Amino acid sequence: MKKLNILLSTDYCKHFFIIIAFFLGTLCNAQKHPNLILTKKGVESIKMQLGQIPVFDQTLSKTKTEIDKEIATGIHVPVPKDMAGGYTHDRHKKNWITLQKAGVLFQILGDEKYAKYVHDVLKVYADMYPTLPLHPQVRSYARGKIFWQCLNDANWLVYVSQAYDCIYNYLSPKERAHLEKELFIPFANFLSNENPQFFNRIHNHSTWGNVAVGMIGLVMDNDELIHKALYGLKKSNLNTNLKDDDGGFIIEKGQKAGFLANLNKPFSPDGYYTEGPYYQRYAMYPFMIFAQALQNKKPELKIFEYKEGVLIKAVYALLNLTNKDGEFFPLNDGQKGMSYYSKELISAVDIAYQYGGKDASLLSIAKKQNTVQLDDAGLAVAMGIKNNEAIPFIKKSIELKDGSDGTEGGIGILRSTDHLTNLIMKYTAQGLSHGHYDKLSFSYYHNGNEVLQDYGLARFVNIEQKNGGGYLKENKTWAKQSIAHNTIIQDETSHFGGKFELANVHHSEKYLFDISNPKFQIVSAKENNAYPNTKLHRTMIMLEDEEFENPLLIDVMSFKSNTNHQFDMPFYYHGQIIDTNFEYNHPDQLSKMGSKNGYQHLWLEGIATPRKRTAQVTWLSNNTFYTLSSFMQANDTFLFTRIGANDPKFNLRKDPGFIIRKPKAKNDLFINIIETHGSYNPVTEIAHNTRSAINEIQKITVENANYIAWSMTTNKGNKHMFIVCITEANKKTHTLNINGQIYTWVGAYTHILKKQ
Amino acid sequence: MKKLNILLSTDYCKHFFIIIAFFLGTLCNAQKHPNLILTKKGVESIKMQLGQIPVFDQTLSKTKTEIDKEIATGIHVPVPKDMAGGYTHDRHKKNWITLQKAGVLFQILGDEKYAKYVHDVLKVYADMYPTLPLHPQVRSYARGKIFWQCLNDANWLVYVSQAYDCIYNYLSPKERAHLEKELFIPFANFLSNENPQFFNRIHNHSTWGNVAVGMIGLVMDNDELIHKALYGLKKSNLNTNLKDDDGGFIIEKGQKAGFLANLNKPFSPDGYYTEGPYYQRYAMYPFMIFAQALQNKKPELKIFEYKEGVLIKAVYALLNLTNKDGEFFPLNDGQKGMSYYSKELISAVDIAYQYGGKDASLLSIAKKQNTVQLDDAGLAVAMGIKNNEAIPFIKKSIELKDGSDGTEGGIGILRSTDHLTNLIMKYTAQGLSHGHYDKLSFSYYHNGNEVLQDYGLARFVNIEQKNGGGYLKENKTWAKQSIAHNTIIQDETSHFGGKFELANVHHSEKYLFDISNPKFQIVSAKENNAYPNTKLHRTMIMLEDEEFENPLLIDVMSFKSNTNHQFDMPFYYHGQIIDTNFEYNHPDQLSKMGSKNGYQHLWLEGIATPRKRTAQVTWLSNNTFYTLSSFMQANDTFLFTRIGANDPKFNLRKDPGFIIRKPKAKNDLFINIIETHGSYNPVTEIAHNTRSAINEIQKITVENANYIAWSMTTNKGNKHMFIVCITEANKKTHTLNINGQIYTWVGAYTHILKKQ
Repeated sequence: MKKLNILLSTDYCKHFFIIIAFFLGTLCNAQKHPNLILTKKGVESIKMQLGQIPVFDQTLSKTKTEIDKEIATGIHVPVPKDMAGGYTHDRHKKNWITLQKAGVLFQILGDEKYAKYVHDVLKVYADMYPTLPLHPQVRSYARGKIFWQCLNDANWLVYVSQAYDCIYNYLSPKERAHLEKELFIPFANFLSNENPQFFNRIHNHSTWGNVAVGMIGLVMDNDELIHKALYGLKKSNLNTNLKDDDGGFIIEKGQKAGFLANLNKPFSPDGYYTEGPYYQRYAMYPFMIFAQALQNKKPELKIFEYKEGVLIKAVYALLNLTNKDGEFFPLNDGQKGMSYYSKELISAVDIAYQYGGKDASLLSIAKKQNTVQLDDAGLAVAMGIKNNEAIPFIKKSIELKDGSDGTEGGIGILRSTDHLTNLIMKYTAQGLSHGHYDKLSFSYYHNGNEVLQDYGLARFVNIEQKNGGGYLKENKTWAKQSIAHNTIIQDETSHFGGKFELANVHHSEKYLFDISNPKFQIVSAKENNAYPNTKLHRTMIMLEDEEFENPLLIDVMSFKSNTNHQFDMPFYYHGQIIDTNFEYNHPDQLSKMGSKNGYQHLWLEGIATPRKRTAQVTWLSNNTFYTLSSFMQANDTFLFTRIGANDPKFNLRKDPGFIIRKPKAKNDLFINIIETHGSYNPVTEIAHNTRSAINEIQKITVENANYIAWSMTTNKGNKHMFIVCITEANKKTHTLNINGQIYTWVGAYTHILKKQ
Repeated sequence: MKKLNILLSTDYCKHFFIIIAFFLGTLCNAQKHPNLILTKKGVESIKMQLGQIPVFDQTLSKTKTEIDKEIATGIHVPVPKDMAGGYTHDRHKKNWITLQKAGVLFQILGDEKYAKYVHDVLKVYADMYPTLPLHPQVRSYARGKIFWQCLNDANWLVYVSQAYDCIYNYLSPKERAHLEKELFIPFANFLSNENPQFFNRIHNHSTWGNVAVGMIGLVMDNDELIHKALYGLKKSNLNTNLKDDDGGFIIEKGQKAGFLANLNKPFSPDGYYTEGPYYQRYAMYPFMIFAQALQNKKPELKIFEYKEGVLIKAVYALLNLTNKDGEFFPLNDGQKGMSYYSKELISAVDIAYQYGGKDASLLSIAKKQNTVQLDDAGLAVAMGIKNNEAIPFIKKSIELKDGSDGTEGGIGILRSTDHLTNLIMKYTAQGLSHGHYDKLSFSYYHNGNEVLQDYGLARFVNIEQKNGGGYLKENKTWAKQSIAHNTIIQDETSHFGGKFELANVHHSEKYLFDISNPKFQIVSAKENNAYPNTKLHRTMIMLEDEEFENPLLIDVMSFKSNTNHQFDMPFYYHGQIIDTNFEYNHPDQLSKMGSKNGYQHLWLEGIATPRKRTAQVTWLSNNTFYTLSSFMQANDTFLFTRIGANDPKFNLRKDPGFIIRKPKAKNDLFINIIETHGSYNPVTEIAHNTRSAINEIQKITVENANYIAWSMTTNKGNKHMFIVCITEANKKTHTLNINGQIYTWVGAYTHILKKQ
């Protein structure tokens, strides 16, 4: 329509053959559609295979049922009014889904009723759009027109572009010209030129914006839009102090923009997306669908090879960031329960299979998803499944580096040899505005269940009663704070003082990630900026030993400061306490543990100063027993906490935790060991292996400050000794004198087992 | 052995043919074994079918693997020492299971290694038993010798009798004489004559004791033991003031004893066992296995026809007392998660199938259990399953009357037409020592999940760290108290003042149970003794109406007292609050709600005096939304509570609740409606139907004290009016003037729907 506008504003005669050229171009273009996601050739293959490809056929049949039912209800294009979860929001959202699917059904089934429906709905949008002011809800830094935020307008266009492509040939040039002039072009301009603070960022919002503009640009062969999509707006005049609704910066100095920049910057070479898996999943759809479209229409870009194939790597990274049930680890702002069964991952797995070398292990994921994208990629997957080509996708221990060049820390995932026990240690950069202040934190899973949890976000996505489905204030006051995580807290203040500006320029440093011995896997990282003049170093070991029923998690946090501080080490468990090996006080009233930094959300349910050096607490969760054994020094306290204080809207889950507190320390270690043991069966009522196998943990004093050492004695009297060099991770020979005994080993750490 | 003892004490010549007769008898007897549970004929049938009856074959194969593995570890008969959950307890428990199964394997597989193993183990027991003092743990009112309580000794003998029967013929008369003299006879006498307080009660403990003595009596053809088992000890000299560990009376005046008395008294004609389903399940094994043995050895007793076939009815009652997943409703002391997958129910279902008319619907339960009893009954079930004879076992709405003659109230179960929504209302007798003070309470399920819960018991059965696996003190201070249940509490005191003596002589009165209209099911009951001079009457309706996505639960509790009191109506939900239609205060500190009667275990998390007459709170649990709508009068308060105060050992679950409180009232109604609506999907992030469809509840003032009436208006403006006659449940015609309008209907209640 851009061309048409130009045309109408110029002299008719002079531009006669421009007109001819335009209509010829339009005609050629028309003949080629669909060519965005579905292709003419792809549609032909699909039609030939229909009825013989079970997963594809089922998906198609379900889609047909769903869309027929929806079409039967008529056309609903209400004037925008509500927040997320409200009627107009949900309705417009349903429309984008219905339109996209109806377009696909038209192509595959050839029934014009679908094309007519898409056209009819689009005409109503085209009638309404030019009249729309900004959305009446004023909560967003980038208000949309159809939705309360531009983000959702962009979602709409990404899907609807596909619908338009599918019915492009069905429409007359006049009909297309009308839709483009009244709806698509102004829509794309609104998302870009009129909202640079939304369009020109390094952020998942901008990716959606870029892709929306790019997709409709590709359908219309509008190079200007395509260029904007790939490279961003040339001039945005954005102020570097601007922040978005989540407190993230809109723009950094000298920052590039557009789709390629959003592929360059937030993705590490390992395919890890700095915001974390929940948002990576969300962004995967526009990334992958636009890549597919670009591959179809601009193969010369070789988009799937961009940055050494980062898009395909990103899909693998995401699959590795899931627990046994395929649920994403809720790092940073992440909603629990979101999984690789989401539509974004169905699409991503199909596209990665098609464009990433037909890896048969992806078929096993697609098989579980039991749905495919209704296009060439989905067809390829369905054929692979039908031909029994699927092989298991095995999630192994893996490190995913963070930072556009992979130098900004990362995520270390340790998985036991039976794959049932998973440790996720986080030593990434801040993760933009959705990042949490949780340097060196971790979460821990057994058999798909959370043992020690990451709280995730404080939000009920799309439940309107809870703040319109948006982030709750407890996301900031609790979920983002350091105390909400299984990591160290100094003086009851969050890392970087909870200041995004500061956190955003730092990242933790990987120290070690060594999985060469599958029965002694180790990950270790340092954080030197979370607190001024304090250095933190956490080392986590997954140890498998015949004396223990399941892998042990050994967790050693060392800290070194100039001055004395209080240090807290929280562990958030689930379930019910079965036993402790120490006495504690249980208060008669519950009080808040503090007034800020998240402590105001914790009730104190118990407090102890254990006399034993090894404090143990056993709990039962999901019919499995767990024991935390903590090395305690004199004056260390053991606190029992529960989330839920200062929560007047019941926005938080009332989950329990332990805190091991060193009231005054400067240079010391927290040594904690988590055992998974036994089982309880409420039907047979048999309780098996209900007790810890650990007798004692000891810190071992080492004169040489380059080393830390500790030991663990089992109830059978076997003694494990661990020495870690904390200054030199490279392979070299170490010799160390501890209490007159000389130890020599190669590499940063050694483990010595003395059997009784 | 009794006979032998007599023999040895008399003159040899005189009794020559008595000796002959004895050995002939022994020989005949020997030839007939096994004849207790397995029979010679049954074993032959089983052998013929082996390999062709999948469920039986699998069970047999699993059993063989389990027992072979166990036998390979050697013989372990430790000197008794530990409480439940401890080594010696668990080991002797394992022995009884292993012996019983090894005996069966010997019979079916014919491999003598199993017989030898059983004999070898029994010899060790026979060596040890005569030397055993009472068990060193002194917690029980009836200490055992092998276990801390006679109950477990009885369990042992019930199983081991079966093992002895299986190897009876394998043993020489001398070997048998040794075992009987040293082990079985003194064991049976210990459980009976030496422990009348255990043996002569109406209680599941005594049933186990009776059956233990009866089973070994049947194996040995010892009529004296059999007689004791069936009819109890003639003279027990028990004091009627004696109480057991749970606070229940040992004996009531004039009470009969023995197996038949335990069948007569606690079972109602509907097969409901007064202690509740958890203990009914526990007692079902001795009841059914002894009945099977009696049927085999004393068919003239016609035990399965006793009390109009109450044993078979009891199995159906138990199956009806389960939720969608087969888990028992945790009435009285009941551990959650216990289900019809327990070994007792596997056995009971098989025996009920075999001796109860081969009801094909039982096969569908057996199919889910996927295990059978390894005997004739199990064979019949496995054959039925193999022949595809199973038809669904459909759990419908049902009333199960309580009391030996069915006149002591009951349990009313309402199930929705789709079977997914279940109401269990309790208006039984006290339920002996395991009863809770929860007159007219209820629990409510949707799709197998608890919506409004019954707390169940406070105990971690067999987890030694928690009070040796026994009842926790919070069972008495919390779980049994009225406030722990969804029922009315006057002046913060439990029903009957929490006094068992008083509670035990009363029961609630059924008023109505009408399920003739599947879309308007009603159960109603009265309680006149829980509080002196206060009459309680609860009416619960399950209403299905097209305006509501799921059935509604309408709950009206009326009370009438001489004087003013405070009345509380608690509802214990799960999940997280999404919204309320009123403001409330959230305290800065949590305090206990009281000092006794269970209130000391509740934290007060919020308090409101809603201005709207219809207070609404919506919560999300298991991804389903629920709304409680409460009719509130001026001064009524709405409290938000959480269990967990005064719980220094973390023995209680920290579950939330609401309390609707009338601070000062004498004669009024609580009207509450519970809606189940909508869904949330964390993968699609779609929230559907998140809001209540109810606008308002109104109490309608009726001049005539024989009636109560109320109305409910929906958001669409439809008005439902309900009138219930509270004094006359029989079908008759009523005419009532309410505010000048005349209503006429037939039967105790009417429902008038005025559509907008």
